[in-house]
Amino acid sequence: MESNGDTPEAHAAITPLPASVSARGWLVPIGGRMQSPDILTRFIDLCGGCDARIVIIPTASNEADCAVYYAGVFEPFHQQSAQVIPLLTRQDAAKPELLQAVADATGVFFTGGNQLKLATMLGGTPMATLLRARYAAGMPVAGTSAGAAFLSDHMIAFGEEGSAPRAAMVTTVVGLGLTERYIIDQHFRERDRLGRLVTAIAYNPVMLGLGVDEDTAAFISPDDVMHVVGTGAVTVVDPVNLDGSAILEAVPGTPLELPGMTVHVLEPGSEYDLTQRPATA
Amino acid sequence: MESNGDTPEAHAAITPLPASVSARGWLVPIGGRMQSPDILTRFIDLCGGCDARIVIIPTASNEADCAVYYAGVFEPFHQQSAQVIPLLTRQDAAKPELLQAVADATGVFFTGGNQLKLATMLGGTPMATLLRARYAAGMPVAGTSAGAAFLSDHMIAFGEEGSAPRAAMVTTVVGLGLTERYIIDQHFRERDRLGRLVTAIAYNPVMLGLGVDEDTAAFISPDDVMHVVGTGAVTVVDPVNLDGSAILEAVPGTPLELPGMTVHVLEPGSEYDLTQRPATA
Repeated sequence: MESNGDTPEAHAAITPLPASVSARGWLVPIGGRMQSPDILTRFIDLCGGCDARIVIIPTASNEADCAVYYAGVFEPFHQQSAQVIPLLTRQDAAKPELLQAVADATGVFFTGGNQLKLATMLGGTPMATLLRARYAAGMPVAGTSAGAAFLSDHMIAFGEEGSAPRAAMVTTVVGLGLTERYIIDQHFRERDRLGRLVTAIAYNPVMLGLGVDEDTAAFISPDDVMHVVGTGAVTVVDPVNLDGSAILEAVPGTPLELPGMTVHVLEPGSEYDLTQRPATA
Repeated sequence: MESNGDTPEAHAAITPLPASVSARGWLVPIGGRMQSPDILTRFIDLCGGCDARIVIIPTASNEADCAVYYAGVFEPFHQQSAQVIPLLTRQDAAKPELLQAVADATGVFFTGGNQLKLATMLGGTPMATLLRARYAAGMPVAGTSAGAAFLSDHMIAFGEEGSAPRAAMVTTVVGLGLTERYIIDQHFRERDRLGRLVTAIAYNPVMLGLGVDEDTAAFISPDDVMHVVGTGAVTVVDPVNLDGSAILEAVPGTPLELPGMTVHVLEPGSEYDLTQRPATA
């Protein structure tokens, strides 16, 4: 159960993530409870400012008035063309008129709710394929709360609270897959989720964890420089110096010893290069 | 909890997986307890026959004599150059001489054991990066049992037995990532794993499930035609016709209603196009 810091595997080198070569879009996970005007204005700017055509996808929500709510959130900033599309079933995700709306958009925004609704309703559909293609071609994509979790390939579906990593405290499933580099968690410090994010990374220390606080956004550029915007922080969990992992021998529910996991807490205004990963922000 | 077959989301169209455009290698998951000479001879042929230089990676195993055992398995077919490399720690996965062995190989074979050992020891290391690059450039990669599970991006780490899918009965983590198209399970019918594979697919119906029986191999060509070799079967779980999912409302441990999941059981000698997915094999 114990990991020995003196073992030969301590501090083995990890290959840096490769630099981006694509012209893909900005990726903007938001930690939920979005209130700062900075977040939406910056996202709208990325989508073309006055010329932005933003599609809001309300699939994650269980609330009947979700569409009305989010239209109201965007309205002060962008009265003309934030459009909530009625994408609520798997059949909707193949409808030509909804596909056309996304094909014509200059940006997409996923609302909050339950990220498993997004995965089960959109997974394997023409809409998911189109969203991936549009993002790869440069369209910015944002999501808040459940919508943030859904953006990545490995998505946290559910887990337990607490700052100590414990074996089997987190369940990841397949997300939209816009990025393979990050696992994203949200409501991060408010719901005490460091433990589950570290645990998710510990199973295979190839990805970075990004824990996004409420009313906070991680604006990730196409070349993987992250800009923190809002009133909270983004916590980066980096396994670069992780020693051999004790997760193999760990009994579910007991604390995990994981010497060498690196954690950066980055405040609004920070820029952080997620490829080079400098020791200081 | 119930799914209604009359809901609008029933039988929504699913986009076919895109055809392969790369010159990547053959992918060969083997279901464990490999005995048929056909499996190894075919794999050795793909790796260059008499000129093959095969590297065996024993990282998954807990057995001290694993290297000796697998050298003996290959020896009758390929005396000259099946080389077991001592890749047992994260530090090993950065050693120049071991990286050179894989750089010079014409094929790689992962032994059985525990797939979480593979993920925790190789994840994020130079060796994992090299293996992905060599496979992308055309090198065949095989794995048996745990070594088969590890090949894909979403890897089944552990789960429960039984043919009925039940919510939360399976845990997937990050694997080596040679393919994003398949989730692979092994010892498939022997350990009654249909339920856990179907459950893994149900969370996000974008991937196909491949359940590989013992002493059976799925030889998957670079253009995603699968050839079944050995004495058992390969079970393909295809969500193409999956109705809206009940997994959202399901209580962990209770049976999942998942109308429309398609299952093909393919016997040795079968060829199956995993891109076009014809209704008959």
